[in-house]
Amino acid sequence: MKARDVRAVILAGGRGTRFWPLGRAARPKQFLRITGRDPMLLETVRRVRTLIPPRRFMLVADADQTRQARKLLPRLPKDCFLVEPAARNTAPALMLATARVWLDDPEAVVAVLPADHLIRDEARFLRTLRAGIEAAARENALVTFGIPPTYPATGYGYIRHDREKGRRIGGAVFYPVRAFKEKPNLAQADEYLASGDYAWNSGMFVWRAGVFAEKLAAVSPELERAWKAIVEALRSGGGPKLRKAFAAAPALSIDYALMEKAEGVLVADGDFGWSDVGAWSTLLEIWPRDRKGNAARGETLALDAKGCLVWNPGRLTALIGVRDLVVVEAGDALLVCDAALDQKVKDIVEALKKSKRLRKYV
Amino acid sequence: MKARDVRAVILAGGRGTRFWPLGRAARPKQFLRITGRDPMLLETVRRVRTLIPPRRFMLVADADQTRQARKLLPRLPKDCFLVEPAARNTAPALMLATARVWLDDPEAVVAVLPADHLIRDEARFLRTLRAGIEAAARENALVTFGIPPTYPATGYGYIRHDREKGRRIGGAVFYPVRAFKEKPNLAQADEYLASGDYAWNSGMFVWRAGVFAEKLAAVSPELERAWKAIVEALRSGGGPKLRKAFAAAPALSIDYALMEKAEGVLVADGDFGWSDVGAWSTLLEIWPRDRKGNAARGETLALDAKGCLVWNPGRLTALIGVRDLVVVEAGDALLVCDAALDQKVKDIVEALKKSKRLRKYV
Repeated sequence: MKARDVRAVILAGGRGTRFWPLGRAARPKQFLRITGRDPMLLETVRRVRTLIPPRRFMLVADADQTRQARKLLPRLPKDCFLVEPAARNTAPALMLATARVWLDDPEAVVAVLPADHLIRDEARFLRTLRAGIEAAARENALVTFGIPPTYPATGYGYIRHDREKGRRIGGAVFYPVRAFKEKPNLAQADEYLASGDYAWNSGMFVWRAGVFAEKLAAVSPELERAWKAIVEALRSGGGPKLRKAFAAAPALSIDYALMEKAEGVLVADGDFGWSDVGAWSTLLEIWPRDRKGNAARGETLALDAKGCLVWNPGRLTALIGVRDLVVVEAGDALLVCDAALDQKVKDIVEALKKSKRLRKYV
Repeated sequence: MKARDVRAVILAGGRGTRFWPLGRAARPKQFLRITGRDPMLLETVRRVRTLIPPRRFMLVADADQTRQARKLLPRLPKDCFLVEPAARNTAPALMLATARVWLDDPEAVVAVLPADHLIRDEARFLRTLRAGIEAAARENALVTFGIPPTYPATGYGYIRHDREKGRRIGGAVFYPVRAFKEKPNLAQADEYLASGDYAWNSGMFVWRAGVFAEKLAAVSPELERAWKAIVEALRSGGGPKLRKAFAAAPALSIDYALMEKAEGVLVADGDFGWSDVGAWSTLLEIWPRDRKGNAARGETLALDAKGCLVWNPGRLTALIGVRDLVVVEAGDALLVCDAALDQKVKDIVEALKKSKRLRKYV
């Protein structure tokens, strides 16, 4: 299989609020330097470019995010950036990106990669991704990547697979998918973890462009119509016609619209240290910690403090007698949060949105 | 008794570190706007000027603090500011200030008032101070102000008085002082509180200049010598001679050097809502609180947060699921501290002093 047959579609359009106050509406997670020295988007691009040459990348985002992405990646050709006409979840975005590829070459393989995930074991990830590309190309399958769960996470979707029917393709083991599961409650998550039949849904996919089109048509006449309208609009040059076709596509996630309904979906065993970095406290697992379990960006003096995460670069932070806190200083706003409750950061953002006076902090 | 006989000596030279990071070596507590809208020094001056005209004030501080005080009080005549030649505790400072008054008029009454205390009931305070001035003038006594304790404080010194011998002078009740007690441990403080014979030592005093000189001479030949050397140096114009006399005076607190050894010390019953505002958490008792007991300067959103004190003016602070914290954002430094441990702020300052790299944050 040659590299020129493969495209990387980078989903760079996330609008997460869970990293407020550092992450803002105008500066979502993929543009934050929270996992390494560089913005997560840049780390995603760097991670994959040894496998897929950057000119074969396609970054999908809205107009504003695309402007920011182009500043970060000034050497990437302009046609590597695909502006979503509207925010309509992942199914329309991936139909648009795959249609662009399909018009070029229906045989091309598309690897879909979110721009705001962390992968610790890059070598293993690339080996698995390469295997996924091979599986998609050779078997005309829709390929997903399942992460073996290490704890009963309630913040991830799960993929149930057929453990008996695993087989090796290239450098990874693949299983037929039996079902996609929404985020479970803790009791369900415990069951999933214990059974060994479930993996976290990483939101990464690989398919041939033509196979994607066929599977869409097979699962839903509505999706087939949407696909055809998008292809037609792209053929005739985009513009208002594309906006109309995009707006008519069902605003669903690709998991819900296609993956969980399609036949012939494979899941790769993806034990490469993946995290969706879903909230501030997940960085406690990622950043280096002192002996008391504190992790900080910025000079920090900790006196009887344990398990705290601090983001305050360029300033001094003093912690006295506190534990398991998330402390984030970001210009005009400061967050001090119980680390176990950091998913409530989005409630703060919702409250801010509702206030005329405080909306500027969103 | 005429107002022209009375001088106010404002002790404006404190160097507290307990309000770090807002309070710094170059900006001690008396210059902070933590109790009201204005710096505590200004509030102290305003509180007393209805009783003593500002031109009869004398502000004692070091050269740098005097510069800051003059900026705050631009209309006060230059000779209202008395620069301490060196930092040598309160006895030399009060000998110097009282000597200045004595050279003018040995009969004049001196009221000594720290610049960094809070007084909630100003009317009652002024009534008590007026009575103290009357007692000092009429009875040639050294007058102190004792605060009826409301809890077994271990952060204050105590005055033991003779409860049987209380008598009214002007608008207050005065007791003969039996002993001055250093800051007690909790068991002792419990005893003091239960006995009813002890009051907190507020560090405010009133005396006639001439009586002060006599009492100094009566308790210690060394203090008498120091007093005479300071008077002599002032008579001949200050300068190097004054610096020498000041340096030779024992570097003691006035409580230890004079008050606890002198005869004829009276303590006024001072139930006027006094606090020395000794640490951040004391402001929880002073600032208005929300229904969950949070008190803040600066816009604050509290989600399941209780009993927190926030200083972050001009910025937004979001609190999630935390309780009993002190959160202080001050430009280049941030403090997050268990409110019960805020006396450890000084340990942070000590640690900063020891580090070449971090000394700039002191």
